Amino acid sequence: MNDLVDDSVTALAVGVDVGATTVKAAAVGAAGAIAAFAERPTPDSSAEIDECILDLVASLRDRCGPPLGLGVGTPGWTSADRRHVIYSPNLPWRNDPIADRLEQALQLPVVLENDANAAAWGEYRFGAGRDCTSIVLVTLGSGVGGAIVIDDTLIRGHHGCAGELGHALRETNGRPCECGRRGCMENYVSGRALVRRAVEVLGPDADPHRAALDGDPRAVAVYAEFGEHLGRGLADDVMLVNPQSVVIGGGVAVSFAQFAPAARRALDDELGPNWRGIAPSIVVAQLGPDAGRIGVADLARQNANDRGKEKA
Amino acid sequence: MNDLVDDSVTALAVGVDVGATTVKAAAVGAAGAIAAFAERPTPDSSAEIDECILDLVASLRDRCGPPLGLGVGTPGWTSADRRHVIYSPNLPWRNDPIADRLEQALQLPVVLENDANAAAWGEYRFGAGRDCTSIVLVTLGSGVGGAIVIDDTLIRGHHGCAGELGHALRETNGRPCECGRRGCMENYVSGRALVRRAVEVLGPDADPHRAALDGDPRAVAVYAEFGEHLGRGLADDVMLVNPQSVVIGGGVAVSFAQFAPAARRALDDELGPNWRGIAPSIVVAQLGPDAGRIGVADLARQNANDRGKEKA
Repeated sequence: MNDLVDDSVTALAVGVDVGATTVKAAAVGAAGAIAAFAERPTPDSSAEIDECILDLVASLRDRCGPPLGLGVGTPGWTSADRRHVIYSPNLPWRNDPIADRLEQALQLPVVLENDANAAAWGEYRFGAGRDCTSIVLVTLGSGVGGAIVIDDTLIRGHHGCAGELGHALRETNGRPCECGRRGCMENYVSGRALVRRAVEVLGPDADPHRAALDGDPRAVAVYAEFGEHLGRGLADDVMLVNPQSVVIGGGVAVSFAQFAPAARRALDDELGPNWRGIAPSIVVAQLGPDAGRIGVADLARQNANDRGKEKA
Repeated sequence: MNDLVDDSVTALAVGVDVGATTVKAAAVGAAGAIAAFAERPTPDSSAEIDECILDLVASLRDRCGPPLGLGVGTPGWTSADRRHVIYSPNLPWRNDPIADRLEQALQLPVVLENDANAAAWGEYRFGAGRDCTSIVLVTLGSGVGGAIVIDDTLIRGHHGCAGELGHALRETNGRPCECGRRGCMENYVSGRALVRRAVEVLGPDADPHRAALDGDPRAVAVYAEFGEHLGRGLADDVMLVNPQSVVIGGGVAVSFAQFAPAARRALDDELGPNWRGIAPSIVVAQLGPDAGRIGVADLARQNANDRGKEKA
């Protein structure tokens, strides 16, 4: 009996998704199922975040036994070798060799991954992309992120910065962007952009999702406009990468049914007649806010297996 | 002695680049060197193009001995399995199983490839990208094409349509495009766009390349504007793919020195401070109009080797 439990236990990997407000951890099995969760508010300093991650791993270990590896998803850019965080917009890390430090502390194989890449990997392996050979994941959160998986490979880019589709041009001299330019995608299809537009159209207290569900034509129009921007903007990415599916994740994806029809129409229109019948499907992400920790746990499993092979 | 000759001869592969006006063939060695050339004007019908390709292969075989395989580069879209041309804008092929037909006729392994992909592969293996792990090739010809190579893999896309960066948005409500939309990249950085702009600024008879070399400030300004459009437009591709280098090919690349400085400045400016120090280099293609036949010959070599392994 004990042997059996030990056997299932050693098959778990831990994924930790470090966000600006919450550090979310999970022990995940080989088929993507979460065996146990653990979360903490994100602390301020790099040292405290280390400690927080170690505590979360300890808590999961207490419940599920020793994991075979740890994966850490982080916003911003990780080095191509997945050992350093180069820059993370909302976190204190700057050229920080997190993987080596945690590895030393835990005596476990540790690997880093950009959070959008981690989520894309999760969806590709176990979620909306599990029957696809290639996906582009678009995360519509407060900002807009992206990631690409092709033939079982995350497209990380030469400096680990690939997939940044939130700052592609949507409108010349358009809405001002935090990045200093104007007209970036992020100013049309992010959660922030949606809220801003909903306030303009519906007033400051309205719930646009609720209002659209109730059939309020102004709210329906806000989502149709949102979907049109999304579909037209995605056309450039689709022409460059030609993925089998575009998977829409992030907080705004809760309103997928409200904006997806307009997005599909706009994408087809923008791609034109040559793409008729071969445009990618636009589908909603299936793992929700767990995609990152599930994905990075699976990458941790791969990393541990690869290291094992190196040793052998 | 004869054995030696035979040995070098069997190492050659034939690449055929089928263009709208010329069918260009070459027998190519394993290191990318061309052993023999052959060319013909492109005939009108599918059957005549077949015959033309067979004649060119026969001519090269007469001079260099039997090749180990044939690769055919074609404009437009080839199927993901590289057996059919799905659609070719300037050629008669529509869902045409060219590879199987030529294979039967030649009793040689045959593989198809999109012409921009073939050129990108040539530059990646033997040209401007030979020291890179990833490139985006941008071909500035009469239109604008593109292709992506990452870690020894051509990014073909789910339907073989990846790399189409000529129709990404450059300017909202901008110059009208042949595709029916407005403001596509192709209307700012193609050979046609350059000629149109040069005629506007310099008059119908001027040679803008010559005039810029002679220091005519109006011609210099035409190239600076061209380079600025190129650099700003490339930013979206660079953020999505993060390649090590962007390689500029096609006929307009002859004026690379005239537009590259403006392109580099515009790309850096568009990418912003987060990309300082990690923006890709913008370099000129090195294989000129031979990139396609060299690249597709190398793909033919791989294909023949892979088939050999399958049999073994």
